[in-house]
Amino acid sequence: MTTTGSAVEDGLAHYQLLLAEALAHDLPTGDPANWLYDLMADYPQREGKGIRPALCLATAEAHGGRLSEALPSAVAMELLHNAFLIHDDIEDESELRRGLPTLHQTHGIPLALNAGDGLAILGFEPLRRNASLLGHRLATLVADEFTVMARHTLEGQAIELGWIRDGVVDLTPDDYLDLIMRKTCWYTTVHPLRVGALIGSLGTKNPDAMVDFGFHLGAAFQIRDDVLNLIGDEAVYGKEILGDLLEGKRTLMLIHLLGELHGSERQFLSDYLRRVRQDRTMAEAQDIRQLMQDHGSIAFAEEYARLFALRAEDSYGHAFGAAANNDSGRFVRRLIGYMLERAA
Amino acid sequence: MTTTGSAVEDGLAHYQLLLAEALAHDLPTGDPANWLYDLMADYPQREGKGIRPALCLATAEAHGGRLSEALPSAVAMELLHNAFLIHDDIEDESELRRGLPTLHQTHGIPLALNAGDGLAILGFEPLRRNASLLGHRLATLVADEFTVMARHTLEGQAIELGWIRDGVVDLTPDDYLDLIMRKTCWYTTVHPLRVGALIGSLGTKNPDAMVDFGFHLGAAFQIRDDVLNLIGDEAVYGKEILGDLLEGKRTLMLIHLLGELHGSERQFLSDYLRRVRQDRTMAEAQDIRQLMQDHGSIAFAEEYARLFALRAEDSYGHAFGAAANNDSGRFVRRLIGYMLERAA
Repeated sequence: MTTTGSAVEDGLAHYQLLLAEALAHDLPTGDPANWLYDLMADYPQREGKGIRPALCLATAEAHGGRLSEALPSAVAMELLHNAFLIHDDIEDESELRRGLPTLHQTHGIPLALNAGDGLAILGFEPLRRNASLLGHRLATLVADEFTVMARHTLEGQAIELGWIRDGVVDLTPDDYLDLIMRKTCWYTTVHPLRVGALIGSLGTKNPDAMVDFGFHLGAAFQIRDDVLNLIGDEAVYGKEILGDLLEGKRTLMLIHLLGELHGSERQFLSDYLRRVRQDRTMAEAQDIRQLMQDHGSIAFAEEYARLFALRAEDSYGHAFGAAANNDSGRFVRRLIGYMLERAA
Repeated sequence: MTTTGSAVEDGLAHYQLLLAEALAHDLPTGDPANWLYDLMADYPQREGKGIRPALCLATAEAHGGRLSEALPSAVAMELLHNAFLIHDDIEDESELRRGLPTLHQTHGIPLALNAGDGLAILGFEPLRRNASLLGHRLATLVADEFTVMARHTLEGQAIELGWIRDGVVDLTPDDYLDLIMRKTCWYTTVHPLRVGALIGSLGTKNPDAMVDFGFHLGAAFQIRDDVLNLIGDEAVYGKEILGDLLEGKRTLMLIHLLGELHGSERQFLSDYLRRVRQDRTMAEAQDIRQLMQDHGSIAFAEEYARLFALRAEDSYGHAFGAAANNDSGRFVRRLIGYMLERAA
């Protein structure tokens, strides 16, 4: 990690600590613990990067707000994030999450699915406390943002799952960007930024100013995530390497490769993608990764991520305006570079 | 159907019509239709009995409220109900719902699970409209009720799934009643009654008055449902007959039978319950149903349901008070008998 990287990690750790305390307060205990409440507490207690709440809290601070005013909204997005992780892991048949077996691997699909529902419903609780904290008008704006975010995420998830189920291969990088804007960027970057700006400015700032910056920041994050899934260190990354390929995810690398291959290699890849996950082998996934390396697909994606990080730099000033140069604003700006060099 | 039964069905149809219109307004359309929004609209469009919204609307009317004041809350509970149905069907590996293949049978688990999430999140939307319709104070009371209801339901679902996964057989009728209070009664009867009373009385009535009546009404409903699953007409009932037995559900009949069997018959049933669903056969389920008939387990459950219907009759007056004798109140009272004789 560079000096910038370590400053970012210190900042993330600072916000993570605040968030963890608030989150612990919101997670219910009681009966049935071993079939519900322990399961709901599992993913939130596994150490994550905490990028979403940190973005929200820092953006609120940068715009003149107090952390306590943004904390319930940050808890809400973290709860829904963890609900989606549980359900995504079931949908994708994933095996590892934050370095440990996924919840459904340990407890079976039925109880894990139900615990995910519990976290999703719990996510609405902190938002209701916003009424007394921020007033009804601002609390309603934040709740509206939450609903829009949830819808974008579910739409993106549906498109990704639909592409896989229906064997869709006729895709361009623009299709990928539309996908990740919905499935990743909105809830990872755009929503935290919008809500932070709204709360910090007491509703006076137009949150649309954050969309362009958030999209490019989130896209850099997602492309880096896709690359790490191919060439990362599993112990640091925390998810199974090549999992995306085994699931048939339409990443930028896969879309690039589909455009490069011809003849028998193209046929091999199409056949592979038409099969269900259980009928794909690790050896095949490794062969496809080799094809991606040979055809420059990984370099293509990394170049895309760098380009999007540059665009995020360009749009940062417009997004943050007068808030661009205080400490909290600078933390957000440093996240751009962090998205590209992170290993986890 | 008796005259009472047909009066109940007319009432249900009346409320169902109102609900369907309001619900159609809340179900989003747009892209991706074939992977998300069509799936979200599927279960709500299959004809159900609409007992939950009808109970809420009639109770609000009985207490002096207008239907329009209770309609958003009724839509919210119906949306969450349908979300839970989709997820329950995945958790239980069910094949039929309202006479058609379950959503995950048609579209696969990943897309169905995601569509269920969409309905659950959508369920919070109508509740937010309550603020302008009922004022912030009453809207907050209703939203609190919604959260409590969701938690009870998820707890009940967790207990039922936990009993099945862990092979728990040491159960009494009281365990069953505690289970169905959480998993069924709260969201099917107690919550609609509480919310209807709150809205109809503009928050002046203590909703705790509805709990005892709601519990007995809901228990009669659930026990009848369990019996229909054994001996109903699949075409009318709409779910697969013997599905509960194949899933290993701990019904009152099963708990009774476990207390009656000895020796090799008891061993057969214990072994059966310890296996996973795929390793149980229809022939075995039919044998267990025969054992239930031979040992009086079905008669035992039917007697329980009749007793609970009587207790519901006893507690109706206290629950409804001055609202007991108007038309809408009488509709609710007629639901007691309907719970026992319904075939679907």
